[in-house]
Amino acid sequence: MTSISRAPDGTAYDIPGAAQIADHFAEISRLAGGRPVVVVQGLGFVGSAVAAVIADARSVNGTPRWFVIGVDLPLPGSWWKIAYVNEGRAPVGSPDPEFDRLVEQGALQTRNLVATASEEAYALADVIVVDVHLDVVDRRVTSPEEIELDLTSFEAAIRTVGRHMRGDALVLVETTVPIGACGKIIIPALESERAARGIFDPVQLAHAYERVMPGPRYIESVRRFRRSFSAIDETSALRAREFLGSFIDPEFEPLELADTASSELAKLLENSYRAANIAFVHEWTLLAEKTGINLWAVVDSIRVRKGTHDNLRYPGFGVGGYCLTKDSLLAQWSATHLSKNSDILAVTLEALRINHDMPLHSLNLIRELAGGSLSNVRLLVCGISYLADVADTRNSPTELFVDAAISEGAEVTVHDPCLRAWPERPAVRICGDLQTALRSNDAIVLAVPHRAYKQLTPSDFPPGRAIVDANNVLEDAVAQSLHGAGSRLAGVGKGHWRKQGYHL
Amino acid sequence: MTSISRAPDGTAYDIPGAAQIADHFAEISRLAGGRPVVVVQGLGFVGSAVAAVIADARSVNGTPRWFVIGVDLPLPGSWWKIAYVNEGRAPVGSPDPEFDRLVEQGALQTRNLVATASEEAYALADVIVVDVHLDVVDRRVTSPEEIELDLTSFEAAIRTVGRHMRGDALVLVETTVPIGACGKIIIPALESERAARGIFDPVQLAHAYERVMPGPRYIESVRRFRRSFSAIDETSALRAREFLGSFIDPEFEPLELADTASSELAKLLENSYRAANIAFVHEWTLLAEKTGINLWAVVDSIRVRKGTHDNLRYPGFGVGGYCLTKDSLLAQWSATHLSKNSDILAVTLEALRINHDMPLHSLNLIRELAGGSLSNVRLLVCGISYLADVADTRNSPTELFVDAAISEGAEVTVHDPCLRAWPERPAVRICGDLQTALRSNDAIVLAVPHRAYKQLTPSDFPPGRAIVDANNVLEDAVAQSLHGAGSRLAGVGKGHWRKQGYHL
Repeated sequence: MTSISRAPDGTAYDIPGAAQIADHFAEISRLAGGRPVVVVQGLGFVGSAVAAVIADARSVNGTPRWFVIGVDLPLPGSWWKIAYVNEGRAPVGSPDPEFDRLVEQGALQTRNLVATASEEAYALADVIVVDVHLDVVDRRVTSPEEIELDLTSFEAAIRTVGRHMRGDALVLVETTVPIGACGKIIIPALESERAARGIFDPVQLAHAYERVMPGPRYIESVRRFRRSFSAIDETSALRAREFLGSFIDPEFEPLELADTASSELAKLLENSYRAANIAFVHEWTLLAEKTGINLWAVVDSIRVRKGTHDNLRYPGFGVGGYCLTKDSLLAQWSATHLSKNSDILAVTLEALRINHDMPLHSLNLIRELAGGSLSNVRLLVCGISYLADVADTRNSPTELFVDAAISEGAEVTVHDPCLRAWPERPAVRICGDLQTALRSNDAIVLAVPHRAYKQLTPSDFPPGRAIVDANNVLEDAVAQSLHGAGSRLAGVGKGHWRKQGYHL
Repeated sequence: MTSISRAPDGTAYDIPGAAQIADHFAEISRLAGGRPVVVVQGLGFVGSAVAAVIADARSVNGTPRWFVIGVDLPLPGSWWKIAYVNEGRAPVGSPDPEFDRLVEQGALQTRNLVATASEEAYALADVIVVDVHLDVVDRRVTSPEEIELDLTSFEAAIRTVGRHMRGDALVLVETTVPIGACGKIIIPALESERAARGIFDPVQLAHAYERVMPGPRYIESVRRFRRSFSAIDETSALRAREFLGSFIDPEFEPLELADTASSELAKLLENSYRAANIAFVHEWTLLAEKTGINLWAVVDSIRVRKGTHDNLRYPGFGVGGYCLTKDSLLAQWSATHLSKNSDILAVTLEALRINHDMPLHSLNLIRELAGGSLSNVRLLVCGISYLADVADTRNSPTELFVDAAISEGAEVTVHDPCLRAWPERPAVRICGDLQTALRSNDAIVLAVPHRAYKQLTPSDFPPGRAIVDANNVLEDAVAQSLHGAGSRLAGVGKGHWRKQGYHL
């Protein structure tokens, strides 16, 4: 029986059997010829973009610098990515046209980018780039003991590399890992698999975390962004620096840290810092709302202080995405399990909890506007993704909001101009037409500042609605006009609306 | 009986009686002539610098724009400031020579800067700039109920203005105040005093918080720094903008916020943000130390991300100064007492607590190096001020450190290249000669990165000492050399020293 892998656009791909995969590998081997080979393990948000950029790297004579093989698993959730790449399509929907262009160019024109499910591909590699997931089991925990890591699949992926890699290949880990993972998890796994094959040379390993940002500058966030990296010995460091320099623009020279623990910690620290900065503003948001202050304007006024305050965050609906919602947990897990000390990253974990619960504040506001209960209220949530104008639903704060609203008896409809489906909540009613959605609901939460929402005018809203603007979507003049037409309004961080009586 | 006011340099000034003050006022009135007058209330760290800058402002024809009168109280703690200004000396020791130059120029050359204890001076003012203190009773509290404000002296100062000011004078409040103070404390106080004098015109009032930073660019931090301001009506706003524009460089155009509550909150938010950013790093400092990581290098590597991460703070000894140690408490007090809501700024208050306790970590490190007890250990603390190369001891973290070390039985000596006395701890032994201090103590904590400490070489330290570097004072090569000479070392955020066995 053939199983199927269904892509987000609905296309179904037959997952090949072992024989077909082996045939494909033979073809790839011929295609690679004697060229230097990079294998990218994992074709997700990071791996697929990194593979595309590496395939675009050129030697001085203008020919492709690397033959690039993307590897993922022959499973329903991932095989379609392999199929996409081989068809010349980026396996991640992105507003950056450069992403599709690079995949198309590498797969169909220069023919130095190919994807496969064959584990044997690792044997061809000069460099293996690890971009597989290392996720927590549940992001919604805060006490250190509850944090659980899904290490099994990560370790299995590393062992697969060890079972096939050449003795002298460089392994470059881009995955965000716990502090100490390179030394305590990855190297032991590689060494044990290599020893079983009689390879006892020292492993060549580096850690170079990525700062990939989905959005209109997706590819640029790989190619024109400074990296920090570290390696376990001088040879690995030299090779990693040279490799990174082959596809990152020379003006963004990689910055070397003393050891892999340092760069592992650096990645977790920088994302935790961002998460903490967001959480910090939330309690000031609540205060500003109660004291009649427009916190959006206040934050703007403070951000003029370049270098010290220009990253002060705005109020908002919540925090989503793959990194900011989990990296702090990886750090705490490291302290407990790898360095085995009693340190608690208390502020860091509290920030995560605040960010996680943040959408419940918008829920409180819409409930208040709806008269104290959401039971049987027709409630429209505008925005599913966690970023404006990006079709990325991973760990979106809309999840918690919608779950809670439904549990309070609301009849929830969601809309998002970037999405036709919501993979994480397939049972929630999604409406493709914004005008229809606005007309057929009584309560409206503007969760995400998508361009389509910022362009709404007062006439787009029927009169007498309850409207929560969670992300500074509506200008004051629009809010005033809507209030004039009998709507009640509240805005996250918009205390001045409350002062002006828009709640009433 | 004449009482005395003693300046920090030891000079004693007789505090004048009422008759002398009245004579001086008559002289000032003549000197002012018909010129536009600014009165600055309070000659502290902010008021004295602001007065000097305003006195330096010029009209288009090159003559002084304002006649400036600085007012402070005829008390032992403040009269010397008045005497200093009239002698042409800045009443705040500062590494910025521009400060002294401006005071000297205004007081002795252009003769448009004068200081007095006469309350009648307010009657001469077109603009009254309020720079008096509004402090908390105790900074070392965190629970909202414990926060107590010293409002009596602040309100008394405002009432003094109201008792003398012209009906049409503009009051510009620069003091950091609780959110809502302009509307709920300052205006009522002014109105009540004015009403008693038969003045019922609306008060002209604006709030324009300063961002003065003691240090080598003290004066620049007044003149070349963007201000946020707000006013209670359009006339006040117009006058405030014009007044600020008369002494702030035109490229730093003031930014107007919607209401005084907004700018009151803005000041508290920006300082609380800075304090929270410092506190955030502390728990990562502890983790880095235990996992052998040099957090200083890691922070450097993250700060290359301009605009989002370049204000990530470094590890350190602690937080001091007038603002960062109290502004969060003002914010919480506002929530409880002025807006009377139940909001708790939990993250903000927790950050303050972490910063307050931070020096105890350095204490733990030196105790560990000293073998577990500080009893009878001759302990030298290098650095009293809270900022490198600045003679500012206000709320220095060295206070808590020294108090705790003494209570554990240590024989404490302090040193600071910028200070000959420690006003807050006059009983603590201070040693003026660094070489002597280093030679005659067994344990040394480098608390502040003063230039004099960064220039120390291994030969400056006798062998076999216990040394804690709390602020990245010693380079790794120096630390290695000291360890080679039998000293034990620990560094805040310097896990790599522990990994290298410098603790042993």
